[in-house]
Amino acid sequence: MPNHADTLRGAPVLVPKGPDLGLFGPLGLREPAVYGTGTLADIEELRRTVAAARGLHADCRQSNHEGVLTDAVHEARTVHRGIVINPAGYSHTSVALRDALAAAGLPVVEVHLSDIHRREAFRHHSHVPAVADTVICGAGAHGDAMALTHLAQLLEENR
Amino acid sequence: MPNHADTLRGAPVLVPKGPDLGLFGPLGLREPAVYGTGTLADIEELRRTVAAARGLHADCRQSNHEGVLTDAVHEARTVHRGIVINPAGYSHTSVALRDALAAAGLPVVEVHLSDIHRREAFRHHSHVPAVADTVICGAGAHGDAMALTHLAQLLEENR
Amino acid sequence: MPNHADTLRGAPVLVPKGPDLGLFGPLGLREPAVYGTGTLADIEELRRTVAAARGLHADCRQSNHEGVLTDAVHEARTVHRGIVINPAGYSHTSVALRDALAAAGLPVVEVHLSDIHRREAFRHHSHVPAVADTVICGAGAHGDAMALTHLAQLLEENR
Amino acid sequence: MPNHADTLRGAPVLVPKGPDLGLFGPLGLREPAVYGTGTLADIEELRRTVAAARGLHADCRQSNHEGVLTDAVHEARTVHRGIVINPAGYSHTSVALRDALAAAGLPVVEVHLSDIHRREAFRHHSHVPAVADTVICGAGAHGDAMALTHLAQLLEENR
Amino acid sequence: MPNHADTLRGAPVLVPKGPDLGLFGPLGLREPAVYGTGTLADIEELRRTVAAARGLHADCRQSNHEGVLTDAVHEARTVHRGIVINPAGYSHTSVALRDALAAAGLPVVEVHLSDIHRREAFRHHSHVPAVADTVICGAGAHGDAMALTHLAQLLEENR
Amino acid sequence: MPNHADTLRGAPVLVPKGPDLGLFGPLGLREPAVYGTGTLADIEELRRTVAAARGLHADCRQSNHEGVLTDAVHEARTVHRGIVINPAGYSHTSVALRDALAAAGLPVVEVHLSDIHRREAFRHHSHVPAVADTVICGAGAHGDAMALTHLAQLLEENR
Amino acid sequence: MPNHADTLRGAPVLVPKGPDLGLFGPLGLREPAVYGTGTLADIEELRRTVAAARGLHADCRQSNHEGVLTDAVHEARTVHRGIVINPAGYSHTSVALRDALAAAGLPVVEVHLSDIHRREAFRHHSHVPAVADTVICGAGAHGDAMALTHLAQLLEENR
Amino acid sequence: MPNHADTLRGAPVLVPKGPDLGLFGPLGLREPAVYGTGTLADIEELRRTVAAARGLHADCRQSNHEGVLTDAVHEARTVHRGIVINPAGYSHTSVALRDALAAAGLPVVEVHLSDIHRREAFRHHSHVPAVADTVICGAGAHGDAMALTHLAQLLEENR
Amino acid sequence: MPNHADTLRGAPVLVPKGPDLGLFGPLGLREPAVYGTGTLADIEELRRTVAAARGLHADCRQSNHEGVLTDAVHEARTVHRGIVINPAGYSHTSVALRDALAAAGLPVVEVHLSDIHRREAFRHHSHVPAVADTVICGAGAHGDAMALTHLAQLLEENR
Amino acid sequence: MPNHADTLRGAPVLVPKGPDLGLFGPLGLREPAVYGTGTLADIEELRRTVAAARGLHADCRQSNHEGVLTDAVHEARTVHRGIVINPAGYSHTSVALRDALAAAGLPVVEVHLSDIHRREAFRHHSHVPAVADTVICGAGAHGDAMALTHLAQLLEENR
Amino acid sequence: MPNHADTLRGAPVLVPKGPDLGLFGPLGLREPAVYGTGTLADIEELRRTVAAARGLHADCRQSNHEGVLTDAVHEARTVHRGIVINPAGYSHTSVALRDALAAAGLPVVEVHLSDIHRREAFRHHSHVPAVADTVICGAGAHGDAMALTHLAQLLEENR
Amino acid sequence: MPNHADTLRGAPVLVPKGPDLGLFGPLGLREPAVYGTGTLADIEELRRTVAAARGLHADCRQSNHEGVLTDAVHEARTVHRGIVINPAGYSHTSVALRDALAAAGLPVVEVHLSDIHRREAFRHHSHVPAVADTVICGAGAHGDAMALTHLAQLLEENR
Repeated sequence: MPNHADTLRGAPVLVPKGPDLGLFGPLGLREPAVYGTGTLADIEELRRTVAAARGLHADCRQSNHEGVLTDAVHEARTVHRGIVINPAGYSHTSVALRDALAAAGLPVVEVHLSDIHRREAFRHHSHVPAVADTVICGAGAHGDAMALTHLAQLLEENR
Repeated sequence: MPNHADTLRGAPVLVPKGPDLGLFGPLGLREPAVYGTGTLADIEELRRTVAAARGLHADCRQSNHEGVLTDAVHEARTVHRGIVINPAGYSHTSVALRDALAAAGLPVVEVHLSDIHRREAFRHHSHVPAVADTVICGAGAHGDAMALTHLAQLLEENR
Repeated sequence: MPNHADTLRGAPVLVPKGPDLGLFGPLGLREPAVYGTGTLADIEELRRTVAAARGLHADCRQSNHEGVLTDAVHEARTVHRGIVINPAGYSHTSVALRDALAAAGLPVVEVHLSDIHRREAFRHHSHVPAVADTVICGAGAHGDAMALTHLAQLLEENR
Repeated sequence: MPNHADTLRGAPVLVPKGPDLGLFGPLGLREPAVYGTGTLADIEELRRTVAAARGLHADCRQSNHEGVLTDAVHEARTVHRGIVINPAGYSHTSVALRDALAAAGLPVVEVHLSDIHRREAFRHHSHVPAVADTVICGAGAHGDAMALTHLAQLLEENR
Repeated sequence: MPNHADTLRGAPVLVPKGPDLGLFGPLGLREPAVYGTGTLADIEELRRTVAAARGLHADCRQSNHEGVLTDAVHEARTVHRGIVINPAGYSHTSVALRDALAAAGLPVVEVHLSDIHRREAFRHHSHVPAVADTVICGAGAHGDAMALTHLAQLLEENR
Repeated sequence: MPNHADTLRGAPVLVPKGPDLGLFGPLGLREPAVYGTGTLADIEELRRTVAAARGLHADCRQSNHEGVLTDAVHEARTVHRGIVINPAGYSHTSVALRDALAAAGLPVVEVHLSDIHRREAFRHHSHVPAVADTVICGAGAHGDAMALTHLAQLLEENR
Repeated sequence: MPNHADTLRGAPVLVPKGPDLGLFGPLGLREPAVYGTGTLADIEELRRTVAAARGLHADCRQSNHEGVLTDAVHEARTVHRGIVINPAGYSHTSVALRDALAAAGLPVVEVHLSDIHRREAFRHHSHVPAVADTVICGAGAHGDAMALTHLAQLLEENR
Repeated sequence: MPNHADTLRGAPVLVPKGPDLGLFGPLGLREPAVYGTGTLADIEELRRTVAAARGLHADCRQSNHEGVLTDAVHEARTVHRGIVINPAGYSHTSVALRDALAAAGLPVVEVHLSDIHRREAFRHHSHVPAVADTVICGAGAHGDAMALTHLAQLLEENR
Repeated sequence: MPNHADTLRGAPVLVPKGPDLGLFGPLGLREPAVYGTGTLADIEELRRTVAAARGLHADCRQSNHEGVLTDAVHEARTVHRGIVINPAGYSHTSVALRDALAAAGLPVVEVHLSDIHRREAFRHHSHVPAVADTVICGAGAHGDAMALTHLAQLLEENR
Repeated sequence: MPNHADTLRGAPVLVPKGPDLGLFGPLGLREPAVYGTGTLADIEELRRTVAAARGLHADCRQSNHEGVLTDAVHEARTVHRGIVINPAGYSHTSVALRDALAAAGLPVVEVHLSDIHRREAFRHHSHVPAVADTVICGAGAHGDAMALTHLAQLLEENR
Repeated sequence: MPNHADTLRGAPVLVPKGPDLGLFGPLGLREPAVYGTGTLADIEELRRTVAAARGLHADCRQSNHEGVLTDAVHEARTVHRGIVINPAGYSHTSVALRDALAAAGLPVVEVHLSDIHRREAFRHHSHVPAVADTVICGAGAHGDAMALTHLAQLLEENR
Repeated sequence: MPNHADTLRGAPVLVPKGPDLGLFGPLGLREPAVYGTGTLADIEELRRTVAAARGLHADCRQSNHEGVLTDAVHEARTVHRGIVINPAGYSHTSVALRDALAAAGLPVVEVHLSDIHRREAFRHHSHVPAVADTVICGAGAHGDAMALTHLAQLLEENR
């Protein structure tokens, strides 16, 4: 894996997580082998470390509010250089978020923890892939790292 | 009707109301014969009294924001023992709320004021019944009391 | 719960059960904790007792024949004051039963043991909700009591 | 073909025929080369002989009533050891019959005289295959014998 | 209008009415200006008179049972010379009745009191028109007379 | 059949025929036993005679042009007292004709020579029944007479 | 290519063009390399020459009126020996034109300038192919010549 | 509102009205408060005055014929500078009119008196919006003025 | 254009803009020829000026949050006299906003910058038109002025 | 069971198995109680023995290639007297195989190990039943024997 | 017909035939009047002669294997100058063949012996027309010659 | 990125490429900046090097034949430890390949060069994701490396 840390120099990237993806810690614990038993803050710290190794500065967000996520993507237009998003439930229902991503003018990598095609039928259609450059489904806890690596590649190639 | 007040001892239950369900009072008055002509605060007081008679403490919420309702359901995981929800318009459109209810790990009773199957076609499909234990449609102002009674039964049986 | 026993004075209500809902007893036993291990006659006796506590006289029927159920609803027009029906499989296929209920001119409460929205797709569409006043799904063995209570309320309000 | 006559010793099996399948004799004669020109009683005698050769006692029914067929399947739960059914028109419309077969807890072999996939579109969907163990379509007058042979095999294997 | 009374000499025709069409009299009265305020027996007497004027003997039936109507059509194969049927709710759901009519080998005229295309969507599809010779919708109380007149014409032409 | 000739006194009714219904005579001959081997003019003469016997003056039109038929229906608003229409192919495709019939404010009887439900799927949906009072399908050459008789009844009743 | 000019001797064939296909000349010019820069009259002259070389007399029409095209096809029944039609927009919407072609009793070759399957979805369904013998799509300016050649072959074979 | 009368100098614009929109006057009177009780000619005079105030010359047409409207749009290519069309019923069924508008190469404003999305389902799909620049629905009698004002703006901007 | 400034006297109207419609200024600049290169505040100032010329006081809002827009519409019930809304992405997904508009009891004009029927299929269906009085699509930067003018007309007529 | 061994004298029949049906032996072992633990060659030997007992010579094939199976069916036209096919995955996707079977001019019995109607939705539609004489689903390891017995019957009857 | 033999000088073109199109000769004989009673080799010789008369060298293939046809189209990219393909059954099911044709960068003419729109519904959709320049359906044995002539025209024009 | 080269020690993994993915080199050259201008053999060498760096031995295949790909997946059951597949066109049409992958009992990573959700509608549905562990779409030339890295992680975790 090429190391983009030098050339990208901590390029800021937005890493928004959609609804239900803040459920970590004592009661909402997910995959302790990967994330430890920490809080959401601990996990986000981990993501930032992974990003830093790829020359990126990860700006982590999590919200259950469609509007907050949409605002964040709008803000990214002037602040960030790319987006690694897991829209969770809003993938299937939000035209607002889709339009914001389309208007952002940035490379977008979409990540889903599970393979959404193996779940209920209403999860098979998603608005976001049509505006994402790359989609990664079902890689579980590895998905974010794969997406950040790939975003670094895209930024490097378009430098 | 059995009285669970003693055994349940004011178990906290979440009673969230979705969009448009805060329209009470002078201009938005609904069913004055049942609710009086009070404000939303008055009505919620009434609901709390009904709940108390069944050994439950009703934590009443109302919001037009999908994210606020989703946040409340997440919070319920560690705070409440059950949920009586009327998701109103979000019943038909919110995967985020559905996923939060599925993740809550609590008994869920869904209430609709009207029989949604008698209204427009887009109201016939709902995401919530698939994650609710029980659904009550069209009981109007009696629906909340029926739902709270039933939730008390479920809690009693699973004690 | 208000007691309507005095004002309603044993008002006759029809309580028809659709196909497969007669399977009680040694081989077809359902929820022995609630119903005991008796025969269908025992269970119907129980239902009549619950109804009596609400001031209603429950006229219990069970049939696997669409026509028998339809005849019963027709007969109710001149004999009963309300209907608590679990149409079971005929919920999804019977226009005849639907039309009979629509023509009955009586308050109708529909009950389903399970939440039909969590089962096979062909059970998601039902003809009956469009002609019922209230629908209760997934309350299991408590559904009949909830429905009879609610029917008593409706009769009281329209007295 | 193994002979199960000894081990099965006339195990009673239900052989219900749905609507339109009673049309034999002078005006409704079908396949005289196979069935002779007898009445429905003659044909049923033939079926019983075929069954006996396989160690089964065939309890033959025919009805145009969905409820009669459903009642028969309910009764089979305590009386018969398996079912060979041709639901005819009710295959496409009866949830009641489907639910009865699913509740019967017996091996079920479904038979259709013709290959229903070569007929009108409304005959392509059927509720019964989802609850049958085996389906035989288009074998004409041989279908019953094939089904009875197969049911004997299933009973033998599960002995 | 030609008078077929002489040539047809009281040819027997089956006039079956489907579910809900027996609701006449004090509570179920329909169109008193046409039918008077009599019982179902009175109305059927009227139909027989209309038929007689066209040289036909009307054999009137009414049932809420799909099986009873199907049996009647089977019986017609050897007894009647034509059928004037209003299948009501079974028009939309009964393959059994459709197959019986197809097998009857008789001229069939289908009558609906109202124009079913102006009612709910589930009434727009009907199994019967595909096996009827002629369909008359929305002629109200005149429909039977029109159908009987037309059936007499068909019988006369095929004599 | 009551004779309305006196009371209706030659009330003018519009009898428009849609595309393909002008194909009579040497090459396009239809049902010579009924219509003779004449030209379209001969057939229309026949229709006028049938109408006259019912107290109606039939204003016969035939056109392959959607606009000409629509113009005729508009004109009928001030000139005629009812409409007996066979829209043929425009039944399935013309919203313009449907809207004109709805705006005409006259009793409308729709006639189809054949039972359109037995033909290709695209003929099963029709715009006209939703604005017609009565629909007669499949009565062949008798359809016009049946429709004119029925229109006379409607006019008589609404006199 | 065999020369049918002698045997067919100028057999008259109808060559109707549907809506929008009259747009030639200074403003509506199409494919000047093929058709020159002439008027519709010039182009039709060209078509007649091509037809003549194949032993056919091309009777060219163009209309934006569904009724005019339908009339022309009706007329063809007694006047022409075959039809080469480009129904343009009426291909997708006209049952009247389809029925006329079906009734014409003549060989029909349908031509489309472009491959309609590469255009908008509403152009993918067409009523005409079901009544045409042969369909040629996307051959552009060569389509008419190919169609006329093929029609000559069909006429020759059926002579 | 800017006044384009000077710069546009009576630019000719086509104002075609589809089927049913010619029903004004004594029997077909619409909105007398706006249009007076005049004839179609009076109303068109009014439209011309409104257009003149915006620097446009309105060429008013009304037809129930798809072909006449299509011809008019074709003619507009060389004669007019823009189109304000209410296609009425042809909005939903005419590919010919759609193709003509697409080929016209002129700014097109589509107007509907009512909000077609509040009417029957078959009116929800329309072919014309895909080829119109602007669509105005439900502004009733004000729609034409709004459309003409807007067309003047479009012409001014593209001058 | 009539001037309602005197009679309406600055009637307050709500002008909410949905998600993505706040993207003005240096990076999100839209149509600088119309709006200048200002900020969202500048543009809203412009809208207020346009409204004032029509006798209206425009209360401008913009939010990416479904709940904030729904709250604003609820608030309008007691504060404003009409609504000019561009729901953007929420047009297609928000039942909550639809229900709020339906409950507002005010005239509603819906505006879309582009003709949504020319864009992706998921934009063709919208919940809002069914509760709006008037819909204006594709008028770009002129849409707001057209809508405010029309709202002033509606208020004037209903004064 | 009649013994056709003498009259059929080893008539060659094709027994092709589609994709995934060659997975027997150490890793792909299926139903060892029936087939032993042998290789595909062992199983095919078993099938040949079963066939021989019915007077047939089974020509066993297995391929994951649609073309190889199609070639085999073509070859069968001149070599075999009947076909017992389990098309497996190609049942749902291969028009080529369907057309080959239709063109073969031989009796065809289709066998599926499992009841495909109980599996995923994409397995519910199959191209083959429309060209097969008889279909047997869900008889597991007994299916081939049932099919071969039935094919022998068909050959005997058509001898 | 212009003669391209000189200018094209035997340009190699691929003429692949899909499944079922190799069935010629004693048992599979098709249209002996056109093709004689020869083998597939004889027929291909005929095609080569027709091609040569148009200045083309026809490279004839026939396969029941999707992969073999796809390989051939890939190979054509460097070897041939155009393709005349009859994909038969793969027209409806093969995305692989479609993608190969799209990638070939050659003129493609698709031929079907019959008019596929007159056959079963599953034959109405085809993947190939979207990547073909020209489609010829229903010209029977003449289709290949028409396609080769047209391909010669296309090659000549693009020379 | 962790280095699994030591622990995995060249574990064999199958890397099959579907139809059209062999088009490299002079005419089919894809992304020369990434892959150089070599042949398919050169590219596969590159893939093997990438795999080796992750401790995997890549067994590269490419075929346009559904059966060859299916055979390869079957073979993988006993030979390989995981699969990185790009099924290309067979993703959308092959149930055979899907079933083979499901039966393989190995970790499966599916890769698509482009984001298939941004292409034609028929590419939006795919059979493979339902049997793959992880799906990567739209990462272009980086997809294989991402997939091999991820497969190494999966193998390491399940060691």
